[in-house]
Amino acid sequence: MYQAISKLYPICRSITGNGFRETLKIIQELIPLEIHEVPTGTEVFDWTVPKEWNIKDAYIKNSQGERVVDFQKSNLHVVNYSVPVRKKMPFQELKEHLFTLPDTPEWIPYRTSYYKETWGFCLSHKQFLELKDEEYEVCIDSSLEPGSLTYGEYYIKGESPDEVLISCHACHPSLCDDNLSGIALSAYLAKHLSSISLRYSYRFLFIPGTIGSITWLCLNEAQAQKIKHGLVLTCVGDPGKVTYKRSRQGDAQIDRASLHVLKHSGQEHEIIDFFPYGYDERQYCSPGFNLAVGCFMRSQHGEFPEYHTSADNLDFVQPQYLADSFSKCLSIFHVLEGNGTYLNQNPKCEPRLGKRGLYKGIGGQKEGALNEMAILWVLNLADGNHTLLDIADRSGLAFDEIKRAADALLEHDLLKECLKSAAVS
Amino acid sequence: MYQAISKLYPICRSITGNGFRETLKIIQELIPLEIHEVPTGTEVFDWTVPKEWNIKDAYIKNSQGERVVDFQKSNLHVVNYSVPVRKKMPFQELKEHLFTLPDTPEWIPYRTSYYKETWGFCLSHKQFLELKDEEYEVCIDSSLEPGSLTYGEYYIKGESPDEVLISCHACHPSLCDDNLSGIALSAYLAKHLSSISLRYSYRFLFIPGTIGSITWLCLNEAQAQKIKHGLVLTCVGDPGKVTYKRSRQGDAQIDRASLHVLKHSGQEHEIIDFFPYGYDERQYCSPGFNLAVGCFMRSQHGEFPEYHTSADNLDFVQPQYLADSFSKCLSIFHVLEGNGTYLNQNPKCEPRLGKRGLYKGIGGQKEGALNEMAILWVLNLADGNHTLLDIADRSGLAFDEIKRAADALLEHDLLKECLKSAAVS
Amino acid sequence: MYQAISKLYPICRSITGNGFRETLKIIQELIPLEIHEVPTGTEVFDWTVPKEWNIKDAYIKNSQGERVVDFQKSNLHVVNYSVPVRKKMPFQELKEHLFTLPDTPEWIPYRTSYYKETWGFCLSHKQFLELKDEEYEVCIDSSLEPGSLTYGEYYIKGESPDEVLISCHACHPSLCDDNLSGIALSAYLAKHLSSISLRYSYRFLFIPGTIGSITWLCLNEAQAQKIKHGLVLTCVGDPGKVTYKRSRQGDAQIDRASLHVLKHSGQEHEIIDFFPYGYDERQYCSPGFNLAVGCFMRSQHGEFPEYHTSADNLDFVQPQYLADSFSKCLSIFHVLEGNGTYLNQNPKCEPRLGKRGLYKGIGGQKEGALNEMAILWVLNLADGNHTLLDIADRSGLAFDEIKRAADALLEHDLLKECLKSAAVS
Repeated sequence: MYQAISKLYPICRSITGNGFRETLKIIQELIPLEIHEVPTGTEVFDWTVPKEWNIKDAYIKNSQGERVVDFQKSNLHVVNYSVPVRKKMPFQELKEHLFTLPDTPEWIPYRTSYYKETWGFCLSHKQFLELKDEEYEVCIDSSLEPGSLTYGEYYIKGESPDEVLISCHACHPSLCDDNLSGIALSAYLAKHLSSISLRYSYRFLFIPGTIGSITWLCLNEAQAQKIKHGLVLTCVGDPGKVTYKRSRQGDAQIDRASLHVLKHSGQEHEIIDFFPYGYDERQYCSPGFNLAVGCFMRSQHGEFPEYHTSADNLDFVQPQYLADSFSKCLSIFHVLEGNGTYLNQNPKCEPRLGKRGLYKGIGGQKEGALNEMAILWVLNLADGNHTLLDIADRSGLAFDEIKRAADALLEHDLLKECLKSAAVS
Repeated sequence: MYQAISKLYPICRSITGNGFRETLKIIQELIPLEIHEVPTGTEVFDWTVPKEWNIKDAYIKNSQGERVVDFQKSNLHVVNYSVPVRKKMPFQELKEHLFTLPDTPEWIPYRTSYYKETWGFCLSHKQFLELKDEEYEVCIDSSLEPGSLTYGEYYIKGESPDEVLISCHACHPSLCDDNLSGIALSAYLAKHLSSISLRYSYRFLFIPGTIGSITWLCLNEAQAQKIKHGLVLTCVGDPGKVTYKRSRQGDAQIDRASLHVLKHSGQEHEIIDFFPYGYDERQYCSPGFNLAVGCFMRSQHGEFPEYHTSADNLDFVQPQYLADSFSKCLSIFHVLEGNGTYLNQNPKCEPRLGKRGLYKGIGGQKEGALNEMAILWVLNLADGNHTLLDIADRSGLAFDEIKRAADALLEHDLLKECLKSAAVS
Repeated sequence: MYQAISKLYPICRSITGNGFRETLKIIQELIPLEIHEVPTGTEVFDWTVPKEWNIKDAYIKNSQGERVVDFQKSNLHVVNYSVPVRKKMPFQELKEHLFTLPDTPEWIPYRTSYYKETWGFCLSHKQFLELKDEEYEVCIDSSLEPGSLTYGEYYIKGESPDEVLISCHACHPSLCDDNLSGIALSAYLAKHLSSISLRYSYRFLFIPGTIGSITWLCLNEAQAQKIKHGLVLTCVGDPGKVTYKRSRQGDAQIDRASLHVLKHSGQEHEIIDFFPYGYDERQYCSPGFNLAVGCFMRSQHGEFPEYHTSADNLDFVQPQYLADSFSKCLSIFHVLEGNGTYLNQNPKCEPRLGKRGLYKGIGGQKEGALNEMAILWVLNLADGNHTLLDIADRSGLAFDEIKRAADALLEHDLLKECLKSAAVS
């Protein structure tokens, strides 16, 4: 995943344009992504697909003709979606178009202006302070013209048409945690899931933030109803503790599965309630859809100093954190996959476990028998009203122990699975 | 309000009689109160309107003919509703009719005997210790005769016949916090509300405690069903923190509005559960009515030392506390008035706020946009199942911010109000 | 109760056999217990009634012919349900059949092997260390043959056919807290309840653990539906604080009554959630029955060092703890018995309590009137939707105070009891 991030890092992405296309092509080396193009001007709910933005070069030259701000050194230097400009102007006029971060004077901020046609440059505050009050030549060699919005989609067919959605925004330029980490994690999760047999179908979306999810939801309104669980992945490669933001529903199965996995990880983590800000969960959880989509992240976007600055770079993201995020997401999917509802076939009193080899022979010993407790919990609560996750949560045992117990009991015909449709609580 | 209290302070009130009438006349200088007289002997549910009590003078004279206890100095000296008496008796006999507070020897207690025909005097324990063992002349020049029970009522017609009830007891003699403060606050709230346009109708009752609310409820049983929210006001002028006692329903809209206002006041306050003791909420919340009536107070009656003593005087109540109670009650009514339920007219994904001037143009800035969050919360939860108060509570934002956001969205046709009837959750 | 325990202590009990029969005969001296015999081989749900086990003698003799381990000294020395054995063997072979507790070297462990035909001896670790590496003569003079499973049952007919179940296991040999204490407490509760008039019927079971409750439930499946409340009694004579384990239902009336009694005892106690391990509540709370049966104990089985060792002896159990358990169980039954649902006959406003002598005459006094509060709470919540226990819990008052208030109101025709059937919430 870290290599993929390194490869994607230099590309200047935006919500439309060739940077986005180039990014999807690199992901196609990992998974057979389907690429969609939606023409500029397409009406998507209350929005319109914007003009396509592309950029070749940009700089500010001082009176000596030296590039004092240079797009070739960092694509963050240009306010994303800046209209083309080429003119000379005094420093006082130029200043209105410059953005810096005085508190972290070494860092370049990341700024966008998608829906208002303007232009600007971002630079470190240190660079800014070195600028003299002289005339500058400003050039942004960009184009903002009719074209299309591009997004990538990958569908893995499972046993059921019910879907798990994994969505990440792929519209940020040279920013690693937000959201090259989410892109890489999605791609590797997709690669892994495509190699195993699955109960649910999985849909992966690599989209520009906001306008991408609005476009997809508008063009796939019926399909969206099949999404039973989902995660937005963002900021998943930094050293912060894992943070899970609940879906608008608040206690959906994806919320409970995520909480369970984080609780049993034994690691520090944070659970936050849904709020209508953030990334594409805003759209998936709008009241007209209200999908069970949460957001999985490490440091919460907007809450760490490196967020949306040049410091969100290849040092900030590390392989071990990506690996940890990968493993936790897989555990969450594992819970969703295995979370059946069962009926105890011998509901009156306990069945005799000893004769089936499910119980040790000598009674009266003090040491707790952990797996036996899982077996007893499953038998006790397998009344058709409790999923395995319900049983795990009530017993305090890990889902895996409960699942293994259920599998053993199923093998001995002591359990029967309820209809799959009923299993989705 | 403090001036009104000062004017009302000297009057000797009781649950019936001229003191009560005089009190209502003074309130009529502020609001056009309607005055009702209910004849002695009227059956009201399990009770009977009592005889009317009036008093001209009362004293205890010592053997030198000096008034050692004198009604003219404080009307608390006479046990309220004492039958007339005029005789000489030795100290040993008189003692049986004297009440003092040994723990606060400077204070005169307040005692009543409404439903048992007897007589008595209250005096400071210091006065009591100075009494010699000699013969005393006792005089209570009172009358207890058929007459009527008097109460005041003021109705402000709003857009809807649904009512908000504000009730205060006006039967206590020279006691300021309990309940001249409640009388003055009610009158000034009424005066203010009568000058603005209102969604709800408001009914103000100035009644004798217990028998007054029982009488009103009995004579207005059908009308009582229109009361959707209500507050009993008592002890609202002392320096204590604001205390709200929930209605019997416990989580009615008046309870939630009061909690919201107190929580967002940033000031210390206390919320207590309903219990079937206290003032007229006991009757409004009896199981046969079960009205959504809470009790708004500062120090809780019975819980502060000055309660029902001569120390509940013009020093104990202060204008700034009255003003604070006034402002908090208005805020509560403001929540009730504005607490509509709305439907997002663009429920699928977020509407484009930028083009409507509801969103700033440059994305990617770190500083939280507070009013925008209110807008996003309203859009997200305006699904017909959440009132604005629900949205305020879930978002953690103040009701006013949410209300302003809703008004702005309404103006842009992004919201539509649900039928008013549905708005009362 | 302590005397009964002393008398029962020496007997070698097991899940079947003469020790169990002898135990029931001693209990018959207290209550007219009905004794049932269920033949070996009877199919009971997934189980089969086992062969009957009896034992006359057992020992290990060293090469000098001395009994180094002797059943006559403690019946714990033999693994319960050991098959007969009589042979000589070297120490190395014998060792495989010896059980000790190295951490508490003076204590003999208690071991069983009900469902696997084997044999063994238990001894203190100190004894074990003294054994030399020589040849030993091993003798277990037991029999394991077709016979029957014995249990005792005592039914007290109350006003209603609805039952309260009290169940204790009586299969442990010389162990006092687990469960001679439970046996003695059950017997004395039965003796007491049989002497008073009761709303519910009470069924007492003295059964072997696990197989006993399975057998009873299988042979009395229809009758089991009449059990509305129940307690398993175990470990009720030790100095530990009282522990109540909730039924599987979790908030059944027996759970709420037990919590109420423990909370108002003013003593330290512990409430634990149901888990599918422990004693016969496992069977009563299996999903096919799901009876409202909790478990009342002091120290929790398995959680104290003396559990299932020779240290659970006549010193560990003390009369004052038995008496305290007795009194708390009676209080719980008292709540169940008295927990009616009532209708206030004067639901609109408060009735006039003073004229009925239920209220003191002089108002305005500060001191809280505790019984009056109980009266007011009952009147306020007697709307047919609250049991007296609901009212006690909501008011924070003790059930007895609420019950006394309800009785007084009933006497004055201010309350009417709802149909008994509705009273069981």
